[in-house]
Amino acid sequence: SAPDASRPTKVQELHVYEINEKDRGSPAILKLSQKPVNSLGDLVPFSNKVYSGDLQKRLGVTAGICILIQHKPEKKGDRYEAVFSFYFGDYGHISVQGAYLTYEDTYLAVTGGSGIFEGVYGQVKLQQLVFPYKLFYTFYLKGIPDLPAELLGTPVPPSPSVEPSPAAKATEPHGTIPNFTD
Amino acid sequence: SAPDASRPTKVQELHVYEINEKDRGSPAILKLSQKPVNSLGDLVPFSNKVYSGDLQKRLGVTAGICILIQHKPEKKGDRYEAVFSFYFGDYGHISVQGAYLTYEDTYLAVTGGSGIFEGVYGQVKLQQLVFPYKLFYTFYLKGIPDLPAELLGTPVPPSPSVEPSPAAKATEPHGTIPNFTD
Amino acid sequence: SAPDASRPTKVQELHVYEINEKDRGSPAILKLSQKPVNSLGDLVPFSNKVYSGDLQKRLGVTAGICILIQHKPEKKGDRYEAVFSFYFGDYGHISVQGAYLTYEDTYLAVTGGSGIFEGVYGQVKLQQLVFPYKLFYTFYLKGIPDLPAELLGTPVPPSPSVEPSPAAKATEPHGTIPNFTD
Repeated sequence: SAPDASRPTKVQELHVYEINEKDRGSPAILKLSQKPVNSLGDLVPFSNKVYSGDLQKRLGVTAGICILIQHKPEKKGDRYEAVFSFYFGDYGHISVQGAYLTYEDTYLAVTGGSGIFEGVYGQVKLQQLVFPYKLFYTFYLKGIPDLPAELLGTPVPPSPSVEPSPAAKATEPHGTIPNFTD
Repeated sequence: SAPDASRPTKVQELHVYEINEKDRGSPAILKLSQKPVNSLGDLVPFSNKVYSGDLQKRLGVTAGICILIQHKPEKKGDRYEAVFSFYFGDYGHISVQGAYLTYEDTYLAVTGGSGIFEGVYGQVKLQQLVFPYKLFYTFYLKGIPDLPAELLGTPVPPSPSVEPSPAAKATEPHGTIPNFTD
Repeated sequence: SAPDASRPTKVQELHVYEINEKDRGSPAILKLSQKPVNSLGDLVPFSNKVYSGDLQKRLGVTAGICILIQHKPEKKGDRYEAVFSFYFGDYGHISVQGAYLTYEDTYLAVTGGSGIFEGVYGQVKLQQLVFPYKLFYTFYLKGIPDLPAELLGTPVPPSPSVEPSPAAKATEPHGTIPNFTD
């Protein structure tokens, strides 16, 4: 019997920007620790906008929760455990889990997906550009068919000043993917 | 070397009903947003009963949390991010993550499992029949050996009026799987 | 075409201890149910130390949340849904999800990982030694290259009295892995 072509092991890179445009009431900072400094017990549900790496298309949103694990005074930051998904309109979604450190890049696990991402595995690099409003992600995806071209535009090099194209920001038809998630 | 027969890529469909019989104190609606309408910040831990698709067997329970992401007034509903597991007694469990929309069917990612579901991947379709008390799921599972016959009975077509068999509801021995989860 | 050697299906066993040394403010018991007994609605974020199975190396920490599902008076314990990760310093992390029962061993799903654990799948056995301070885990890992020798020392047989080596507990250089997670 032949190996199954439906479970490719080649790596596909996918770049996206996550941007908090402060119009979704996110994040919700739940200070359940009841302590003045960030402490275990605090929870931070969040949902931000997701744009293609080339910033030409609004793709969808992120949705999930950051669990505060430990305040790191020597780093002037915090460790969170993040459990969330990236939504890509009609294309489906990718779920991830791992560390979000406010002071350092991290790699999270890709735990699964739906639609064109059904059966996906691999990891994703999280780079923070403007805390906590602008992040850049590089997915290293395996287990799925070739991604559609409109997700694979050449990424704008990540920097704090990047902005989505006006058409993407305004969710004009040519600035979005089919049924982008809102 | 030969491809590994222990990681099958064929799709197995598994149908289950999730029913809230209002006897488990579920859901726990935590209005942590402190806002009158459903808002980011609200959390909903839940656990309901799980029956086989043919409604002849009580299998176990669901267990997890829905994270409210956004109220959608135009849909008269809400987007949640759902992170939960389905428990199947001695057979093990399946973990899933993805969107739960109160107004529309969704597909969630199958992120892993234990027991006979060790190594599982794929996706699951969520269909709501009676909000929020009765749901029908179709799992599309890969990566696991053939499922046992008692999980694979012909499903009762999903409708708001479906009910588990009296033996399943009463968890009589012939109405349950081995050590069903309660 | 040949099957892909980068996605091995052999099982690698990895043993670790999780120990709460009561110096991380963990767990944070959030009694959001507002009921006197443990009830659905209660949430328990946690983060404990992780040592190698031979107790010679401090590896890192756990980080995540336990969602209280049901109090089981007849078992004098509780069912939780656990969503968390194990951090292994420069080696990366493993994410897991499944049941934590305070009165019984369980198997959780391995949902993914990063670093040397990129693409991991399988399950993990959780054994409680001293509630809720000392646990022993046996991971059954697939999909990854051979693990490094320093993670694979012969485990100390699990018992309530086990303690990490003084060098590991003091995080001396020879008692840790590279950039152990703290």
